[in-house]
This record gives sequence, C-alpha cells and structure tokens, in this order.
Amino acid sequence: MDETQNFRRGGADFRWDGVSLLAYKDEGSAPFKAITRQVLFQRPEIPCELRYFEMAPGGHSTLERHEHVHAVMIFRGRGTCLAGEEVREVSAPDLIYIPPMTWHQFRATAGEPFGFLCMVSSERDRPQLPSLEDLEQLRKNPRIAAFLDS
Amino acid sequence: MDETQNFRRGGADFRWDGVSLLAYKDEGSAPFKAITRQVLFQRPEIPCELRYFEMAPGGHSTLERHEHVHAVMIFRGRGTCLAGEEVREVSAPDLIYIPPMTWHQFRATAGEPFGFLCMVSSERDRPQLPSLEDLEQLRKNPRIAAFLDS
Repeated sequence: MDETQNFRRGGADFRWDGVSLLAYKDEGSAPFKAITRQVLFQRPEIPCELRYFEMAPGGHSTLERHEHVHAVMIFRGRGTCLAGEEVREVSAPDLIYIPPMTWHQFRATAGEPFGFLCMVSSERDRPQLPSLEDLEQLRKNPRIAAFLDS
Repeated sequence: MDETQNFRRGGADFRWDGVSLLAYKDEGSAPFKAITRQVLFQRPEIPCELRYFEMAPGGHSTLERHEHVHAVMIFRGRGTCLAGEEVREVSAPDLIYIPPMTWHQFRATAGEPFGFLCMVSSERDRPQLPSLEDLEQLRKNPRIAAFLDS
C-alpha cells in the first residue's frame, strides 16, 4: 500500500486503487476456501485496521476464535454467519459484532460473491482453531451442524 | 445502542436496527449543515469506532482539523471532499485518509444524499476550527475557495 496517497478510487468490482488483492491468511495451516483479503486502512496513526474480505460462491472463512473482537459490516451480497450459538442469514449492509473468544465463520451460501468489511485492533492475539472436542460441542446444535456442512 | 445484540439488520435506507439517528455533533458551536450521524460500532473491547455520516443534498460537515486521523469510505452517492490542499470529487466506495492536523470537509455537491463511513480512534482530541487567518490562507488556493463557496 502506497501510504503517501490519501485518496483511493474504489470501483464497482470491489477493488481499490493501490490496494493489493491478498491471500486470506499468510500461513496455510488454517482451513478456508475461495476467500481474498484487501487491507483498506492500516496506519501507525490509528489503532485499528479496516479490511475487506470476499468469498466466491461456496467459499468460507476459517472457523476460529480469539480474544480480539471483530466489527463487521456485510458489504457485498449475502451469505451465512456463525457467531457463538447464532447462525444468521446476512446481507449488505448488516452489522455483526464478534465478541471475544466467540467461534465465528462466514460462508458464501447464496450462490453469489459474499464480502464484508472488518474493523479490528492492530494489536491482536493469534486465532485459535477448534479442537475435535470443540467441533463435537458445536455440532450438538443442529443449526451449527447444518451450517458447518453447508 | 443495545450492546447485547451481535447482529443488526441494515436497510436500503442506510439505517440499521437498534442504531439511533443522531445529531452530527453534540455541541452547537461548529458550523455544519444537514448532516446526521449513526454510531455503528462503539465498544470498550476495541480501540476504534465506526460511524456513518450522511448529508442531505447541499449539506456539509464542519471544516476542521485535529491530531487524530480519519479513515473514510464513501458509502452513499457522491460529493466533494477537501483534505489538506486536495479537493476531490468522490463517490462510493472511494477511500480517504485524513492525516493528523489536516483541514478537511465533506460537501454534498451532487444534488443527492452523500454518506460516508468513518473509522476513528475512541480516544481523540477535540477538533479545531479555522481562524480567520487559517481561512484566508486556505482561500489562497482557488480550488479550495470554490469548494468552500460551493
């Protein structure tokens, strides 16, 4: 990102001038599918970042939890979101708050691209992946089991 | 804002369930016109806030500067933005970064509602208004003079 540029043109294609289309995660250990990341704002002068994530139809983010929170706005299309015990159909411009240590995942279940803005603290802990026991516990909720299999 | 609610439905009318439509500023001393504020995320767990500001046609935000920065995404329509020495026509979903102590203002110059998301640190200094000398200095740039008179 060219940090000397204060104005960045955004396009109808959900891309922005001077903003790179990145892999969702740098490491390859966490499961995810057909999802990209764009870092819209990341500056030392402000303690949060704003990112845009987009899934192709059928794509999904990693099922994970962490101490840091996410402040999310659905920005493109519709899909499904797990947050704790709640599974919701969501669409632009819905808001979702992911509290600390809450299992969450986004899935592009509507046969269309599904994108969201995510505000997050610049200083944050590393996400945790579910253990087999965690997954077993989550799947006791039939809505969550259906979501994870969707 | 009901902080127990993790999901908030957003509408095509640029309003969100459980999010109040507020006056732009609490105090009445700074000049502004036909602009509203909605606080989309404001939580002790994250060091920034996300707000949505919207101007009616002809409306404008306050011309001001401060040490804290703004990370802005145009979210509805188009209009004009001053940031430092730059005056730009902007439209959704353009990005604008307002650096520290940079004069800035948004104006709904396109005969349509003009709205933007603004990420800002929760801890921030009080905005400064321009003195007569500051205004004189700004108006030396004909683009800025035309913007301020628009």
